[in-house]
Amino acid sequence: MKTKFAIICVANLLMAITCLAQAGTATVLEDFRPSVLNQPGQEYPKVNSQGYARFRIVAPAADSVKVSLGLGGRGGTRLAKAADGSLMGTTEGPLDEGFHYYHVTVDGGVFNDPGAQNYYGSVRWESGIEIPAHDQDFYALKNVPHGNVQQVLFPSQSTNAIRRAFVYTPPGYEKDRSKKYPVLYLQHGWGEDETAWSNQGRANLIMDNLIAGGKIKPFIIVMTYGMTNELKFGSGLRNFKVDTFQTVLVDELIPYVDANFRTLADQAHRAMAGLSMGGMETHSITLNRPGVFSYYGLLSGGTYTPAEINDKANVKLIFLSCGSKERPDGVRTAAAALKEAGYNAVSYISENTAHEFLTWRRSLHELAPLLFVN
Amino acid sequence: MKTKFAIICVANLLMAITCLAQAGTATVLEDFRPSVLNQPGQEYPKVNSQGYARFRIVAPAADSVKVSLGLGGRGGTRLAKAADGSLMGTTEGPLDEGFHYYHVTVDGGVFNDPGAQNYYGSVRWESGIEIPAHDQDFYALKNVPHGNVQQVLFPSQSTNAIRRAFVYTPPGYEKDRSKKYPVLYLQHGWGEDETAWSNQGRANLIMDNLIAGGKIKPFIIVMTYGMTNELKFGSGLRNFKVDTFQTVLVDELIPYVDANFRTLADQAHRAMAGLSMGGMETHSITLNRPGVFSYYGLLSGGTYTPAEINDKANVKLIFLSCGSKERPDGVRTAAAALKEAGYNAVSYISENTAHEFLTWRRSLHELAPLLFVN
Repeated sequence: MKTKFAIICVANLLMAITCLAQAGTATVLEDFRPSVLNQPGQEYPKVNSQGYARFRIVAPAADSVKVSLGLGGRGGTRLAKAADGSLMGTTEGPLDEGFHYYHVTVDGGVFNDPGAQNYYGSVRWESGIEIPAHDQDFYALKNVPHGNVQQVLFPSQSTNAIRRAFVYTPPGYEKDRSKKYPVLYLQHGWGEDETAWSNQGRANLIMDNLIAGGKIKPFIIVMTYGMTNELKFGSGLRNFKVDTFQTVLVDELIPYVDANFRTLADQAHRAMAGLSMGGMETHSITLNRPGVFSYYGLLSGGTYTPAEINDKANVKLIFLSCGSKERPDGVRTAAAALKEAGYNAVSYISENTAHEFLTWRRSLHELAPLLFVN
Repeated sequence: MKTKFAIICVANLLMAITCLAQAGTATVLEDFRPSVLNQPGQEYPKVNSQGYARFRIVAPAADSVKVSLGLGGRGGTRLAKAADGSLMGTTEGPLDEGFHYYHVTVDGGVFNDPGAQNYYGSVRWESGIEIPAHDQDFYALKNVPHGNVQQVLFPSQSTNAIRRAFVYTPPGYEKDRSKKYPVLYLQHGWGEDETAWSNQGRANLIMDNLIAGGKIKPFIIVMTYGMTNELKFGSGLRNFKVDTFQTVLVDELIPYVDANFRTLADQAHRAMAGLSMGGMETHSITLNRPGVFSYYGLLSGGTYTPAEINDKANVKLIFLSCGSKERPDGVRTAAAALKEAGYNAVSYISENTAHEFLTWRRSLHELAPLLFVN
């Protein structure tokens, strides 16, 4: 009986797969589950195995509720009255794998989805949703030794403020009290802040898993706020100048970290990388301040040309990456030119992702094993 | 000229004060400023020097927008169309000093205020607003040495999960690598989580300031999630059982902390305290597991009777507190009975506060100097 039942199940499964293949994207599988980023106990938003997202908002007297996620260029997903009086809607197509910011527009007002947790992006705390990625294992929370993420408040004379950084210390950091570690300074993108790399980026879990798998030697990661010529919130990147942040990072934060953590405090053991605007900052600061970093990483954050690098003897790695839906050719071409000029340049393209966090999680996962090895 | 101008100014000021005194609470001073808990760059919500709060929500097509804060029992503050098309409103009276959770109801749907930062309370991320307290200096962010707040992921076999705790390590923890510290286990209230004591409680800043002022000897604080018989979100405290959490705390987290931080790992150097439901947990666990803690603190979280304490020889302090708008007599009476029975019992009443975080910030500030001193 058991064997027969199993055979019928397999046959049904094969039929189901065939049906799905014939129907193409028009068939939305009804296997929706709560997004893993939902607030505790919240059923919605949900995602299905194809990457569709379904939203539910309770606002009985609202005339118009729209979710900012959906198909590109079509203005997101409009919710409609459901049988229970709530407003519901499903994206017109599957979303890219990974993390997406979104918000809800209720009768013209922008709010967050009460079902989802919030993540700082677009210069505000936005709702977040996660479409499970086929390779999500590398950033999953597992039963392995975990490092800590420490909130550090450090004094900044140049900005006359107490500033915040998060410092990832690897598992074992506390136990072996004589060991010293290299440091990666890792920057967020425009409109994000120092919480981004551990919250939406899962940098600590990526590191924990790499270390548990014996794929990297442990190092420290430092993440701080890079939009220090704040708060020109309307002006975007146009008026961004790196000088203020460069002083905070190089002249204030690095000495603070070296004084308060067990670091290998020299250029050979110091890396800088950043995503998007953080890549622009990495580009500028590594060029403006030769002698500080020896590993450079631009994640969806531009490229270097061989001619502009003025610290050639001390540059041990140049890592350039982006999503395949961004401009992969630019990244590949730039890395080739750098290699041609004698640099240890590596390019990485994240398949089927755009200017979003799965690109950067994967990029960190590729970058980490290349750091502090030569 | 300058002197004359100054005299006129003082005269005007005196007149203004006289007017205000005559008008009483009906005069709302127009000195509103953005709440210090606003999201970066956000002007609203605002608070004035009297403790009134003013809200502004942009939702052009909304018919009804209400803020949950206002005068008790009157259903909060209803916003009305302003000249610029936004919806605005001011509380009918001043709010208590300190931190308040709130939310916005837009056409029947519950959302957060896009202007405010979010804090986990009521089993959801809520908006937060801060009415500056006359004694806010003790929890202010100052240019003093700062301890770190470390996010720790620890394994819990009993709940088959990787659980999260936050650990405050005092300034200097990293530098003197042989020094060991006592530990306070500090619990949040119902509907809150392990982020509450550092986010809305400012426990780390209270400690930093006490240490900088030479008022306490440094100790470690550990904060973890106490609602482990989750997720009965509708059932409130009714069905709460402490057993699951007690196992996580005593048999899993304490050994993890003692193995991974430089603690004085004995009863004499271990305290437990909690607010509201966290006080109930403290009460139960200290009684169920004698031999683990020697300092007990209930912050708006009930009382002990002398008869129920079964570890008399090892109890070094019983601290009971609440706000003056709660049941201060119960706290005072219980402390007196404990003293009478020979315990080192201390009661503290926070003036003009209710079951809210200013009560608990002040309680921690009073409790800390009494810990680990005898």
